Amino acid sequence: MADRLMRRLAELATLSDMPGGLTRLFLSPAHKRAVALVEGWMREAGLETHVDAIGSLVGRRGNGKTLLLGSHIDTVRDAGWYDGNFGVLAAIEAVQAAGDLPYGVEVIAFGDEEGVRFPQTLSGARAVAGTFEPAALAGRDADGIAMGEALAAFGGDPAGIASLARQPDEVLGYIELHIEQGPVLEAENLAVGVVTAINGASRFAVVVTGDAGHAGTVPMAMRRDALAAASEMVLAVEAVGRSMPDLVATVGAIAVHPGAPNSVPGLVKFTIDVRAPVDAARHEAVLAITNAFDRIAGSRKVDLSMTQTHDAPAVACSGRLRDRLAGAVKANGIVPRFLPSGAGHDAMAVADLCPVAMLFVRCKGGVSHTPAESITPEDAQTAVDVLVEFLRKFARNDD
Amino acid sequence: MADRLMRRLAELATLSDMPGGLTRLFLSPAHKRAVALVEGWMREAGLETHVDAIGSLVGRRGNGKTLLLGSHIDTVRDAGWYDGNFGVLAAIEAVQAAGDLPYGVEVIAFGDEEGVRFPQTLSGARAVAGTFEPAALAGRDADGIAMGEALAAFGGDPAGIASLARQPDEVLGYIELHIEQGPVLEAENLAVGVVTAINGASRFAVVVTGDAGHAGTVPMAMRRDALAAASEMVLAVEAVGRSMPDLVATVGAIAVHPGAPNSVPGLVKFTIDVRAPVDAARHEAVLAITNAFDRIAGSRKVDLSMTQTHDAPAVACSGRLRDRLAGAVKANGIVPRFLPSGAGHDAMAVADLCPVAMLFVRCKGGVSHTPAESITPEDAQTAVDVLVEFLRKFARNDD
Repeated sequence: MADRLMRRLAELATLSDMPGGLTRLFLSPAHKRAVALVEGWMREAGLETHVDAIGSLVGRRGNGKTLLLGSHIDTVRDAGWYDGNFGVLAAIEAVQAAGDLPYGVEVIAFGDEEGVRFPQTLSGARAVAGTFEPAALAGRDADGIAMGEALAAFGGDPAGIASLARQPDEVLGYIELHIEQGPVLEAENLAVGVVTAINGASRFAVVVTGDAGHAGTVPMAMRRDALAAASEMVLAVEAVGRSMPDLVATVGAIAVHPGAPNSVPGLVKFTIDVRAPVDAARHEAVLAITNAFDRIAGSRKVDLSMTQTHDAPAVACSGRLRDRLAGAVKANGIVPRFLPSGAGHDAMAVADLCPVAMLFVRCKGGVSHTPAESITPEDAQTAVDVLVEFLRKFARNDD
Repeated sequence: MADRLMRRLAELATLSDMPGGLTRLFLSPAHKRAVALVEGWMREAGLETHVDAIGSLVGRRGNGKTLLLGSHIDTVRDAGWYDGNFGVLAAIEAVQAAGDLPYGVEVIAFGDEEGVRFPQTLSGARAVAGTFEPAALAGRDADGIAMGEALAAFGGDPAGIASLARQPDEVLGYIELHIEQGPVLEAENLAVGVVTAINGASRFAVVVTGDAGHAGTVPMAMRRDALAAASEMVLAVEAVGRSMPDLVATVGAIAVHPGAPNSVPGLVKFTIDVRAPVDAARHEAVLAITNAFDRIAGSRKVDLSMTQTHDAPAVACSGRLRDRLAGAVKANGIVPRFLPSGAGHDAMAVADLCPVAMLFVRCKGGVSHTPAESITPEDAQTAVDVLVEFLRKFARNDD
């Protein structure tokens, strides 16, 4: 079965908007072809399929209250083969292998998770959760095409999006399989792990202003070197990140002006990204960073501005679903490793509708969003086996 | 007299290769016009003039062993009015005001100090010192024009450069007036200062390589963050710079890859610039920086490469000429402030021929190489007065 799954992932990866690599943007021709290909595999697995008003492919089996499974089939530019796509195809395999289940099950291939093409993202998952904002349809891509226009051309139905919203009492929960996109499982030699929460994230744009000057003529004691100040700040961000478990804090981008070897830096811009599975921890970290920055700016007499550019709360996975996933992991002979998700996922948006849980699969080097993304057939098989076990147990235990 | 000097500086600043600002490159049309304008002022001051084989304008008065005065009339792009030009026009004023002197005096307006147009620089001063390398004539500007071609078109004589070399026993020394290009005199409320040495300089290109990763998914403990390592290094460079008097050490440029807010930096490139008036101090500083970098790279397990891109020895000013300049400063009621020059000057090259000394003039905000360059008429007058006093005393004291 893993052979088929890996073969399908390779075949799906050939459907790209650009030659020589995988780029499959929301509502693009490659997205359209991918829907058709995956739809065939869903039918082969005994699912009744349709493409919904916002372009998500849905495959359903059974009646009554429904367990949702899924992930996304859009990609970043020059993507790997597994981010999103693995979760969709693994769910199809698991549903096929699980046999009859005493509840409805749907596999959804969302089309807009990466947020590469339009300003807003998670459209498919938001539509299902009833939180899709129609204003997003007016957002335009780099070619000036509005999401609403692209959706109509794709065969979708902008006016029908509102009716996609599920009622909480119709759904049992949402389970998403995904590559880890991080190095933890590989480092601990584990095929899979159970997600505790999708991290909340804060981002800031920071500007440090000192005095530019000639690197040869301004004595050290008379300098207000913006880069030296920023360097202390980078280390403060790192120290705060290290001070709490499961917290990460990163300065990823930095730019210096004038930026010449013989100039004392007068102005530095950099970014901060802070993530944590618990919002209180994240807020505490941001406060610690802000306090450290104020101290550094004060002692170096540089000017400091910090602008928040992003603030997303953490989404906790359902304790009940998480424990059942952990039970299924244990049943496959693996000690459950609980870990937060540092990246965002469709599950974040579906969480507004119902309990969600996620299973991570080890990926080589912890890398994603690059053609170097890689998983082993053995790990893919393990992930499917865990989901099958979960689906069967869930049938017996649901109340 | 200061009025005339300031007026001439303003008039000279109108001769530019570009509209809307001052850019006067070596051997350009604006350089040609500047030579003609300054030549008229030299003649007005009683100097016999000629343009030498490498395009330097020379004005001479008197016979016998000769004291050289001068600076340059080429500029950087979008330059200020005073860098170089002030030293030439102030020397003309001083020679005119000093009256008859019992030794020969020459004012030289060098044409190639900024090194903006061709790969090599200081051509005029090197020619006088006999250190001009004919290979420099083959160096080309951005339009593909070789220096030799440009010089011939300018009216110069590539074949005649070798004969410009003076004999040490023909010259008494070289005195250059220049704006400070730094903030020391302004901070200490002094119109002028006496240069001890032109700093030697070492430059390095540094590459720090860690592991790139997703800022949300790679736990802090598993990171090899190239920017965090580089930040420690920036602070180490600053600490070394602060550890010795008259030493400056700067990281002026830095670039991060991948350089995205949500990426852990995997690779950082930055520059180091170290300058000191004493070469041993500079070498000691470079060693301290290298040792600190090795420690940081080792403890953070990042890879480090350091490539030296520049190494110029310090040029000490003549103790005798420096002391006489200091005497002339004192005679004008100012306590002599001795300071190193962080920037390079024509005097560096002339030092291969004869003793050199420099007088710095306070400039507003310590800035240079920008249209914001500014000096006051009072300071200009003081600088000329000091040089006149020097010329007269030098006449009485020379042996």
